[in-house]
Amino acid sequence: MTMPIWLDKRASLTPGRTAIEAGNVQLSFAQLRQQAQGVATKLLNKGLEERAVLACLSESSVALVVLVHSIPYTGACLMPLNTRLTVHELLYQLQDSGCKFLVYSDSYADTAARLKQELNHLTLVSLAELQALSTAAAASRQLLHDVEEQAVYTIMYTSGTTGHPKGVLQSYNNHWSSAVGSMLNLGLSTQDKWLLAVPMFHISGLSILMRSVIYGIAVVIQERFDPKEANEAIMSQGVTVMSVVSNMLVRMLEQLGERRYPQAFRCMLLGGGPAPLPLLETCVEKGIPVVQTYGMTETCSQFATLQPEYMLTKIGSAGKPLFQGELRILQDGQVMSAGEAGEIVVRGPNVTSGYLNQASADSFEQGWLHTGDVGYLDEEGFLYVLDRRKDMLISGGENVYPAEIEAVLMSHPEVLEAGVTSTEHEVWGQSPIAFVVLRQENVVNQEKLLEHCKARLAKYKLPIAIHTVRELPRNAAGKLLRRELTKLLPIT
Amino acid sequence: MTMPIWLDKRASLTPGRTAIEAGNVQLSFAQLRQQAQGVATKLLNKGLEERAVLACLSESSVALVVLVHSIPYTGACLMPLNTRLTVHELLYQLQDSGCKFLVYSDSYADTAARLKQELNHLTLVSLAELQALSTAAAASRQLLHDVEEQAVYTIMYTSGTTGHPKGVLQSYNNHWSSAVGSMLNLGLSTQDKWLLAVPMFHISGLSILMRSVIYGIAVVIQERFDPKEANEAIMSQGVTVMSVVSNMLVRMLEQLGERRYPQAFRCMLLGGGPAPLPLLETCVEKGIPVVQTYGMTETCSQFATLQPEYMLTKIGSAGKPLFQGELRILQDGQVMSAGEAGEIVVRGPNVTSGYLNQASADSFEQGWLHTGDVGYLDEEGFLYVLDRRKDMLISGGENVYPAEIEAVLMSHPEVLEAGVTSTEHEVWGQSPIAFVVLRQENVVNQEKLLEHCKARLAKYKLPIAIHTVRELPRNAAGKLLRRELTKLLPIT
Repeated sequence: MTMPIWLDKRASLTPGRTAIEAGNVQLSFAQLRQQAQGVATKLLNKGLEERAVLACLSESSVALVVLVHSIPYTGACLMPLNTRLTVHELLYQLQDSGCKFLVYSDSYADTAARLKQELNHLTLVSLAELQALSTAAAASRQLLHDVEEQAVYTIMYTSGTTGHPKGVLQSYNNHWSSAVGSMLNLGLSTQDKWLLAVPMFHISGLSILMRSVIYGIAVVIQERFDPKEANEAIMSQGVTVMSVVSNMLVRMLEQLGERRYPQAFRCMLLGGGPAPLPLLETCVEKGIPVVQTYGMTETCSQFATLQPEYMLTKIGSAGKPLFQGELRILQDGQVMSAGEAGEIVVRGPNVTSGYLNQASADSFEQGWLHTGDVGYLDEEGFLYVLDRRKDMLISGGENVYPAEIEAVLMSHPEVLEAGVTSTEHEVWGQSPIAFVVLRQENVVNQEKLLEHCKARLAKYKLPIAIHTVRELPRNAAGKLLRRELTKLLPIT
Repeated sequence: MTMPIWLDKRASLTPGRTAIEAGNVQLSFAQLRQQAQGVATKLLNKGLEERAVLACLSESSVALVVLVHSIPYTGACLMPLNTRLTVHELLYQLQDSGCKFLVYSDSYADTAARLKQELNHLTLVSLAELQALSTAAAASRQLLHDVEEQAVYTIMYTSGTTGHPKGVLQSYNNHWSSAVGSMLNLGLSTQDKWLLAVPMFHISGLSILMRSVIYGIAVVIQERFDPKEANEAIMSQGVTVMSVVSNMLVRMLEQLGERRYPQAFRCMLLGGGPAPLPLLETCVEKGIPVVQTYGMTETCSQFATLQPEYMLTKIGSAGKPLFQGELRILQDGQVMSAGEAGEIVVRGPNVTSGYLNQASADSFEQGWLHTGDVGYLDEEGFLYVLDRRKDMLISGGENVYPAEIEAVLMSHPEVLEAGVTSTEHEVWGQSPIAFVVLRQENVVNQEKLLEHCKARLAKYKLPIAIHTVRELPRNAAGKLLRRELTKLLPIT
């Protein structure tokens, strides 16, 4: 099955409606289409082929939005890169995905150049140049009008449990179903305006762009999150929905002070783990409708959400799966009853069909994705997530996988074993903390190991401390017991 | 692909929300599920098999709604029968569909008995009995939890151009996509309440029931249309959306007098052909947001709609296709440009895959349905329907096909040829008018021919006059020229 390119359809239905607001820039859907088609034409003329992977390295911007919407016209796949990654990490993704095109914004010109040094075949394309208002020559091949529902639109890397990041394949149908499921849950008004202040290279941000063209609603884009600006947008720019993580919301409330949001503001979509009680209580007091959500890259954004009416009665719950989603709690292949914990297993049209270059992984079974997350359902069917993906931690809204940090530590010649776990962090919620067993004592110190990490890991993944220990806690089978690691900490 | 049964999902997400209001009866989604599962259990115990066709003959009622929602649990298909049809017409549908189960309401007990006389194998089931609050025994086989997206949920007969009614296959995915497309166009609020005063055996009524469980909104059911009651529901029962045809709207406005609908009333969904200008002007004056729509049984309700802002600038237009729909104007296999008329050809996930027992008909080509309707697109892409299905006329909201009436007339031994066309009718908009060539003069008169028709055709299909003529207007190839028929009328 094919479907018409969403932006084409949207621009034909409601050409004059506002698609994007960003600072002084405002684009209607008709204008957005014109620009996206222009960019698509330029990309085709640069030799971009169908099903090729095109990476982009850019902060949130109108130009990036245009690029996202130009992709369907070319038949290529978009791989949005996390701008916080090191060159080392970026290289891995470019190589693993066989990517030959990298579009970069001015801020990342140096990084792009360094990547090109390593990967000779990489074609660098400046986002500014793509966006420049030159009349594009006729495309070397025709712009597409339709897309295959099952075709891959975007690829997003996520580290998972293996230590090696994997490219999650997100099809048109995945994105479509995610948008439809969200709408059935949150409702839809032509007056809606969604504030995008989370990164577009994460599914939380990218999915807002999809909803915008599918729903026909405006997106307000803020390049980086600033509590004052975010509050401004809600107070006086007509924003009705916003996507946040706890930390953002805390800072917004602080900045908001005694003021209250207008009635029209109808949804604060809160991802990245359950919110602390005091935060929720403040929101109730202020009449802010918080919708807590559980989702991941593999489910193309929200999978389950908790409605505002349950904010205080179901604290810690991620609510119920969206309309098209099915959820089971499994333990040793058995479906668990209410109250019993097990692995969260999900199915639905928004769930990825798999990872790039990975033979149908263990994580999939007849359409069911084994998330690696642990949780249970209560008697009324509300989901409680106990543990994200076997020890994953969330630091300032970014997922951090201990296994990935351990792999980097162990790549140092002096490190024999490494174990990473999470520790509470006042600002970021959680932070990674590392424990290493060295081959010889006193040859490297914490500083040198950190240097080693810095060259290979994004800042938010860096351990806040690296402790040297004699041995790591392991079970009988030799499996690392990450939960036990903190017991090795010197008593303070 | 499968999906969870909608009512199961809905009752799990929002068990307490109101699903149905009908007079004093009010059912939540949890209660609706309980009743639907009870009815499904009884049906299974009566031997209803997967993929069997179950017909129902009933006025709109809560019991009928419950029956509609019980079907997915059984895996059978529902065939809602038009209660205005004659026994002769009903028999055709029951036989053509191989139907072995007929559920009837008390009002149609006699008809059901007569059908049983003709069709010995028919199992009659009283709707009242199904609905009775007896504790159902455990089902003879398990209730289903999932449905195949492509499985047929409902079969609705439509006469088309051949004179033989054909069963339109409506899959779960067709209904789902129709509901999603409508929502993307009209928006959705949890406060929505849809007034159902059109027949449930037509797609206009049935589709409201689908939207109710998919959206989680209440349906207000009125057994028969009454302008005063309909206005009451809008004025004081919180109805926000209503489906109507022109004639209903005219009568409601008359009854409404000087009053105005509350602000919360946000959509008057007007089907069954374009509305007359004075009606639209009155609606503009009164601030009633009319959404005109073009759709058919084969598209599971709306395919294109005209938004209120274009009510007076695009008079006569049916607007633009919904988000997932594609539309072309074809003439001799060529796509026509703006302004050029041709056959309306449509594609989309809400479009039926075909007709029951019909080899992939001429009407389908690579997923495109040739509607038989004639129209054109203007420069801005707005659809204008010039002619419904090769001479179809719409009488009081019911589709009437000349070919079907002609076939009945010609089945009379004294009729050699018959031609039927439409004539304007003050109350019903249009009415059929017939012309016959007799084998011998003066053997039958108009009265006798009408008797013959009455036994075989629903009342609304009866010609308002039957004229005897010497010959019918035909083209060189002998094709009947229905448009020319009225020229044969005696000048009055």
